[in-house]
Amino acid sequence: MFNKMCIIGVGLIGGSIARASRKNKLCKSIVGVGRHLENLEKAVELGVIDSYTTDIERAVIGADLVVVCTPVGSFTDVFTSLKLNWSEDCLYTDVGSTKGSVVNALQQVFAELPANFVLAHPIAGSENNGVEASIDSLFSAKRTIITPIGSVTNDSAIQQCKKWWEGMGASVTEMTVEHHDEVLAATSHLPHVIAFALVELLRNKEDKKDILKYAAGGFKDFTRIASSDPDMWADICMANANQIVGLLDEFQKLNQGISSLIESGDRQGLRDVFKSAQTTRNNYLKLQENR
Amino acid sequence: MFNKMCIIGVGLIGGSIARASRKNKLCKSIVGVGRHLENLEKAVELGVIDSYTTDIERAVIGADLVVVCTPVGSFTDVFTSLKLNWSEDCLYTDVGSTKGSVVNALQQVFAELPANFVLAHPIAGSENNGVEASIDSLFSAKRTIITPIGSVTNDSAIQQCKKWWEGMGASVTEMTVEHHDEVLAATSHLPHVIAFALVELLRNKEDKKDILKYAAGGFKDFTRIASSDPDMWADICMANANQIVGLLDEFQKLNQGISSLIESGDRQGLRDVFKSAQTTRNNYLKLQENR
Repeated sequence: MFNKMCIIGVGLIGGSIARASRKNKLCKSIVGVGRHLENLEKAVELGVIDSYTTDIERAVIGADLVVVCTPVGSFTDVFTSLKLNWSEDCLYTDVGSTKGSVVNALQQVFAELPANFVLAHPIAGSENNGVEASIDSLFSAKRTIITPIGSVTNDSAIQQCKKWWEGMGASVTEMTVEHHDEVLAATSHLPHVIAFALVELLRNKEDKKDILKYAAGGFKDFTRIASSDPDMWADICMANANQIVGLLDEFQKLNQGISSLIESGDRQGLRDVFKSAQTTRNNYLKLQENR
Repeated sequence: MFNKMCIIGVGLIGGSIARASRKNKLCKSIVGVGRHLENLEKAVELGVIDSYTTDIERAVIGADLVVVCTPVGSFTDVFTSLKLNWSEDCLYTDVGSTKGSVVNALQQVFAELPANFVLAHPIAGSENNGVEASIDSLFSAKRTIITPIGSVTNDSAIQQCKKWWEGMGASVTEMTVEHHDEVLAATSHLPHVIAFALVELLRNKEDKKDILKYAAGGFKDFTRIASSDPDMWADICMANANQIVGLLDEFQKLNQGISSLIESGDRQGLRDVFKSAQTTRNNYLKLQENR
């Protein structure tokens, strides 16, 4: 399908894209771009990429697919480098967890937004980082969201990107940039912030109280995402700040309400909130099973 | 070890205790007590208990081990029934998730606190409820915390209870009632409240936004405990209200701080909080592995 794929940022996601594209015969050769030579050498050793360079400008020459897999905070710099050898015959795409910020970065670099850049986000990941954690099935039976920019993004580029993701096993949905950022703030960004916050709260108590020793399975699952990469998540919070701050505010109000129910001994009121949440969680599980 | 064990409340925990005690030959016969005949019949069918009755007063006659496995909100009623045929030759114990509330319930019922009642709490469970979910290995390699009441609880009763739990595969620790309630509020009760709250927040948005469809693995694990029994958790929140309200307050302040870091664009400050939490989570994992 593609001759030369260029992966910028060969970590968990970039590495898994390379593996999945190769396994499903979606490209002939793969060049990786990164800043850390050691990581790039590792990626070649593991057979994830064929070759590498630290120079984006040179790497993309002759590529017909360029995938930006670096943290969203780096996108303006990456786009600035890409612009130097921009090709109309190439499909550009990204995997950023926030999409409004990608539009902003494009606007900062390009006077006219490129029609052949397709914004995309695979809803897949792991709390483990790095190319060593990459697998060729990471996107299999997972969703990838494509967020076209209104009158800008070329339809054939969208279809090409869609077909490529489907080739890696993903189920592809389209939505607006705004809807994406709202949905992801609720289902991913806020949970990550809260998990980090809870673990941080316990750290503050740990020294005196020997608390974590007694934390069981519920805690382990609840906080799994607090083992995620702090840099990546700081970037995401900066990139989707308005949505996350708004949701945190709503979340705080809800917690305040729950706290009042507990304090006033309103067992029935509290039970109703928990029951409503339990029903929603169980509906979500059914939704997952029926996909 | 015991001749006749009486399990009051034959659900996930009560059922698993019955199965584990039988499997490890810790008792000869098991009578179950509950309010729902259908459930008790099911428990006999499954071979979890030998017989049942809905009458606590009658059930405990001749028993040398009585285990209270009902929700903590019911303990005063249960103790009132137990008092009628109280035996000095029997070991009484419970599995309540909060221990201060058990002391309160005992104080309400007994003029003099019984020396042969050992407060215990197995740190094990599942978001699935009911005797159908019970398994004989639920406590294997898990902790059980015993919280003796200062000068009240009889040491030989404590040792007997400890040996019984160890016989079911648990690792037993002793701590004070107060320490228990503080530790569990942080590692279990607060996470449950937060998980319920997050799912409830998303429910409020779901109708309009079709949000849960796009929730991925992180969300699924994070919210697993929001599928827990609402009644049990409403009881726990009532029973450990002070600790939970205090922690919720601390948690709210921490979130407020994080929200301010995001709003003011303090990426480094935010990254430091996330990094600190990540380190703590990873230390916790090591602690689990080295147990």
